[in-house]
Amino acid sequence: MRVLGLDPGLARVGYSVIETDQPLTLLDCGIIRTRPGPSDGERMVEIVGDLRQLIRLHRPALAAVEMFFFYRSSKTIAVVQARGAMLMTLARFGVPVREVQPMQVKRCLTGNGHADKPEVLDAVMRELQLRDPPRPDDAADAVAIALTAWFQR
Amino acid sequence: MRVLGLDPGLARVGYSVIETDQPLTLLDCGIIRTRPGPSDGERMVEIVGDLRQLIRLHRPALAAVEMFFFYRSSKTIAVVQARGAMLMTLARFGVPVREVQPMQVKRCLTGNGHADKPEVLDAVMRELQLRDPPRPDDAADAVAIALTAWFQR
Repeated sequence: MRVLGLDPGLARVGYSVIETDQPLTLLDCGIIRTRPGPSDGERMVEIVGDLRQLIRLHRPALAAVEMFFFYRSSKTIAVVQARGAMLMTLARFGVPVREVQPMQVKRCLTGNGHADKPEVLDAVMRELQLRDPPRPDDAADAVAIALTAWFQR
Repeated sequence: MRVLGLDPGLARVGYSVIETDQPLTLLDCGIIRTRPGPSDGERMVEIVGDLRQLIRLHRPALAAVEMFFFYRSSKTIAVVQARGAMLMTLARFGVPVREVQPMQVKRCLTGNGHADKPEVLDAVMRELQLRDPPRPDDAADAVAIALTAWFQR
């Protein structure tokens, strides 16, 4: 089955698609970027448009979405709002969602809930037999999120 | 022009539509309710479906959306996510948004940023020449939000 990993944001959304049939394979990963000019609503329209294309292209059976605990700040409000638009879009396409916390990703992939980024990246490369790390960082995070949801299913 | 007032939530969204040509008139108000069973994403699909109907019916020139400061809690996260899905939908229909804070509503309608609910309700009834207060509470809040955005434009 295919798992779509998503690292939500308003300016940048990391995404990944893994195929879980053996061997585990990374099919796609990258970044959805939005322009800073328009309103938050218009930026979310861009994000949702790209997300719909990803869903139509890959037909994921599961979406893994990063869920973080947060503090009051206008920046985190914008990220949570964008995640809302994304969760609504996934539901409209009937894609079940598993929410994954950052500490779960670290613990699941390295055995240590406080692992640093390079350790997580090493685990991602080992699991998917990659020679180079996925780039950029947000895309690599989305790969780790998809793997975690798959291992925890 | 028509102003759509929205008091976001996941279980209940208050809405109102006012016509600002003299005399100021309340055209519509009520509640979008969602069932507790489905996922947050599915509940947001329901909200967005009803919101699209309201937009198509009333063709608002402006939307006023309550913006609140919040603390970390799973309940407020769900509300902020739902607001994201709503802001994205308004942007998709090209409806400009004005975000309104609760204290701005109180100050604008009563002159006192710490007014209580009955004072705000009195002001709403006076401005719109209503004999009875809008019901239920979330709908009345949405009316106050629309009036504030109009007066502050």
